[in-house]
Amino acid sequence: MSDEPGLFRTIYTTRALRRFKPDPVPDAVLFQCFDAAIRASSGQNAQDWRWIIIRDPAIKAKLREWAVEGWERYSARYGSEEDIRRLPRNQRLSLLSVRDLALGLDRVPVIVAVLGMKGRHSTPGGSTFPAVQNFQLAARAMGLGSSIFNLPMREQLYEMLGIPESNQLYCLLPMGYPADRQGPVNRKPVSTVVYNERFGEVWAFAGEQPDEGWGERWLG
Amino acid sequence: MSDEPGLFRTIYTTRALRRFKPDPVPDAVLFQCFDAAIRASSGQNAQDWRWIIIRDPAIKAKLREWAVEGWERYSARYGSEEDIRRLPRNQRLSLLSVRDLALGLDRVPVIVAVLGMKGRHSTPGGSTFPAVQNFQLAARAMGLGSSIFNLPMREQLYEMLGIPESNQLYCLLPMGYPADRQGPVNRKPVSTVVYNERFGEVWAFAGEQPDEGWGERWLG
Repeated sequence: MSDEPGLFRTIYTTRALRRFKPDPVPDAVLFQCFDAAIRASSGQNAQDWRWIIIRDPAIKAKLREWAVEGWERYSARYGSEEDIRRLPRNQRLSLLSVRDLALGLDRVPVIVAVLGMKGRHSTPGGSTFPAVQNFQLAARAMGLGSSIFNLPMREQLYEMLGIPESNQLYCLLPMGYPADRQGPVNRKPVSTVVYNERFGEVWAFAGEQPDEGWGERWLG
Repeated sequence: MSDEPGLFRTIYTTRALRRFKPDPVPDAVLFQCFDAAIRASSGQNAQDWRWIIIRDPAIKAKLREWAVEGWERYSARYGSEEDIRRLPRNQRLSLLSVRDLALGLDRVPVIVAVLGMKGRHSTPGGSTFPAVQNFQLAARAMGLGSSIFNLPMREQLYEMLGIPESNQLYCLLPMGYPADRQGPVNRKPVSTVVYNERFGEVWAFAGEQPDEGWGERWLG
């Protein structure tokens, strides 16, 4: 397919997006996200991931209630909203978008709950989050935004969604067509997080590359 | 870039590959994998992932020793090699490739160790494995193969690689140019793992799609 979104272009522009337009997400778009997600590998190829599509207003309203409580607990560490507004730009914008997601969670078009079998794998999350990343890349490629959002997580969710004891809830993915713009993702440079042969040892090659990485090769 | 690998084509053809040619992996190829990996999201954007590139023959020899021990313990549950050869095709081929990876681990061109801060995040692996998936997709797009491989994992690795107490080793990624072919990934259909509104509830749309999914739209 000639109009296929590029892999690197997608990876370099998939940021956590938390504000959405009210437009519904078509089933076909959701299906493509899931069909991409489940191509990921899982320990012993168990494919024990399970996914629940949440669009029911009553469930979303409850999730919003828990998210707002979660936000109040979580944001307390930063002090008042006034204090948050004095944080460095990136941190401030990110925190305010988390707050807006909590407050508006009942209006998010779709929330996907991601599950896996309890105790099935020795590496926590290693059989779930590769699929979650495929899901988010596919969503981004089709113009949607999403983020892993766990402020509303609590025990009662298991009963509300009928999740059996055998399963663990790994994360929630609110998603929709973004009101914020997509764009390049800035990160700490490779040279500061990749070591050669031993923890802490400089990898010379990385030190010679631009701090902003190679995104421009694909976005330019 | 017009010659960019397609996102969906890459996702639909990234399988765990465990047998490699001896060809070394150029630094530039490794850098591109890391630079893609670190564009993933992480809880509170902590980016606490750390990566160690292992190419030292002495370290790889030790990892091989532990992997072979791990394989012996792990494969015992299936009985003898004779028993393994009687397993269903997919399971048999997968197990034998794990065995071959263990036995040949000292000849794998690169092994990447993936770390994160201990206790930093409430969702295990949720701030590490999205980046690991980006890494593996980027590797596949550049013609490499890899897999998450934890048979050689053990406490002594921390000392051998100088990993501080504050860090947790999440996984090992042996990688190189594959001796086995790349190809489409078959999985349980979306209709069997995605529910609507509640655990166990059929999602009608998925039931109407072909069991093999939509890969052909991108690979055809």
